[in-house]
Amino acid sequence: MSKAITYELIKKDEATGARAGILHTPHGSYPTPIFMPVGTQASVKAVSPDELTDMGAGIILGNTYHLFLRPGADLIKEAGGLHKFMHWDRAILTDSGGFQVFSLGELRKITEEGVTFRSHIDGAKKFLSPEVSMEVQMALGSDIVMAFDECIPYPADFAYAKDSSARTTRWAERCRKTMTAENQGLFGIVQGGMYRELRERSAREITALDFPGYAVGGLSVGEPSELMREMLSVSTAFLPEDKPRYLMGVGTPDFFLAAVARGIDMFDCVYPTRVARNGLAMTATGRLVIKNSEYTHDHRVLEEGCGCYACRNGYTRAYIRHLFRVGEIFALRLLSLHNLWFLLEFMRRLREAILADRFSDFATDFLQGYKK
Amino acid sequence: MSKAITYELIKKDEATGARAGILHTPHGSYPTPIFMPVGTQASVKAVSPDELTDMGAGIILGNTYHLFLRPGADLIKEAGGLHKFMHWDRAILTDSGGFQVFSLGELRKITEEGVTFRSHIDGAKKFLSPEVSMEVQMALGSDIVMAFDECIPYPADFAYAKDSSARTTRWAERCRKTMTAENQGLFGIVQGGMYRELRERSAREITALDFPGYAVGGLSVGEPSELMREMLSVSTAFLPEDKPRYLMGVGTPDFFLAAVARGIDMFDCVYPTRVARNGLAMTATGRLVIKNSEYTHDHRVLEEGCGCYACRNGYTRAYIRHLFRVGEIFALRLLSLHNLWFLLEFMRRLREAILADRFSDFATDFLQGYKK
Repeated sequence: MSKAITYELIKKDEATGARAGILHTPHGSYPTPIFMPVGTQASVKAVSPDELTDMGAGIILGNTYHLFLRPGADLIKEAGGLHKFMHWDRAILTDSGGFQVFSLGELRKITEEGVTFRSHIDGAKKFLSPEVSMEVQMALGSDIVMAFDECIPYPADFAYAKDSSARTTRWAERCRKTMTAENQGLFGIVQGGMYRELRERSAREITALDFPGYAVGGLSVGEPSELMREMLSVSTAFLPEDKPRYLMGVGTPDFFLAAVARGIDMFDCVYPTRVARNGLAMTATGRLVIKNSEYTHDHRVLEEGCGCYACRNGYTRAYIRHLFRVGEIFALRLLSLHNLWFLLEFMRRLREAILADRFSDFATDFLQGYKK
Repeated sequence: MSKAITYELIKKDEATGARAGILHTPHGSYPTPIFMPVGTQASVKAVSPDELTDMGAGIILGNTYHLFLRPGADLIKEAGGLHKFMHWDRAILTDSGGFQVFSLGELRKITEEGVTFRSHIDGAKKFLSPEVSMEVQMALGSDIVMAFDECIPYPADFAYAKDSSARTTRWAERCRKTMTAENQGLFGIVQGGMYRELRERSAREITALDFPGYAVGGLSVGEPSELMREMLSVSTAFLPEDKPRYLMGVGTPDFFLAAVARGIDMFDCVYPTRVARNGLAMTATGRLVIKNSEYTHDHRVLEEGCGCYACRNGYTRAYIRHLFRVGEIFALRLLSLHNLWFLLEFMRRLREAILADRFSDFATDFLQGYKK
């Protein structure tokens, strides 16, 4: 197995299990817990790589499904890999394409071999499998490669969840065999649906394959928040301490707190950039709907004391509201920069709290002021 | 009359009349000839004020018509003026709103008093006049204020052009009376349609009012290029040497050369940012249609040797093509930055050529390689 990705545990909060660590990658070492902005189609929407660097982003995501369809892995390989193609010299994590393919519903068909599907763009017939996903991700040259798994929908009955999870294990073995790149690290993904027994089994099977990191998959798919927390706890209980743990698709501070308290180190989500494009600014007291008339004459920045590009340069709510209402692209950039900074900065503070033995207080204080 | 705006003639090319100068404004002094990017709605589309500063932009435009409707002059005044509202500390020129209002066609009615029109946004009845335009532009606090005039459509008969130009003179007198701000300079606008006699008369009447600068209006409205050049020559012949001359709405290098050779110092146009959003990159050899399949595997920058943000950072045609095809906002930014840089840099080189007594050679050399 490649030694490209290693994890260094710096401090563990004994009361909760929250961890502060460092994730070492071929493109730099990054403090964890970490939030990873999503650059689906080789661009974090509305922002530049320079802006991501300025705000302290360390790892960003690329989506294999989207890049596989457009512009295609061959083109990116020809360009020198995804880092070079999109001008990003810090770390990149790519997902396996599985999540998007399974989301296609009627347009896809699952077999043991892999998934046949029709492109959401032009209906062309395509095929993804553990082997194809690994080959695509090797062409992309991401630092962290995700195993090709099935994200079990919610709700799913026990039999389905059991069969699917077993297949995910078999697929993980095939991924492991195919992924031979020395400068990339393959993460396994724990499934098991909403069944404690299956979660434990999946975690035992996947960790037996000895990956350099593990994701907890199949959560945040519509299940009640309490159930998600329970499944998260069950899953991380069987993950080794010396490897990073990644919870996919979670991007709000309240969930960060819940997941970090259950031993999660890595997060990604389109949430901050997606809601920015809908005119939402994230703040410590909740969301601010910028188009609302209450901000017409509000000449304050989005959040006082915020160090993001928009706030530290004095762009006001009134100005951003105006830009948003009249359809100016710059509004989307300012809001995206603000929201990404908000989550990255939140994670920096959260990590400081773990290091200073005050994680629980930090979480309590934050949640008292936060409105979902 | 306010002394806010002054012009310093540095060098005149005797063969052509091309001028190199410096325009002094309350927000800095800028070399001329100058290209001024357009920030219609308090934002130069897809780029930030920092990016404009980095590329060496000196003066940008704001559109009175658009800002009058949204967010309204009162709000911008309350925010501390347009500079502060949009975070731009170099110079701003605002137009009078006349051009947009006249473009509304059936939706507007002209009287001696001013123009009644319906907003293109919600149909609300509005009124603009020399006095209202001046009051709005004083509220905006632009450095250079344009007189409220009628841009005569093409074609127009002699009688219409004569009456309209005479009214533009009367309106210019009313603008002059109303514009009392000490830190803003009011430019008069020469009209006269496509008639030499009326152009001369308008130029004589408008310059008699002794403005700190003059625009040549009513050109680039659909007339043949030869006619435009002729009317431009007639108009500038009657403008004083010690004042800047501004040709409104022209934004391609071939026209810059023709107009600078006829004594023009200032230009604005939405062209570079508008075509960027349509996927066009401007280069010294003509336009590059980025979505074309010929760029799929083209891993070169938009234009070799270009110093714009996109090119100097190595963003390739293949990458920008990909972003444009999949609808990523960042493509629009990269192309806008490139096109704006292209025109600003073109103007810097053109000015150097005037200073080095080789303007005609510069123009000939450029036009030989340039494809419209």
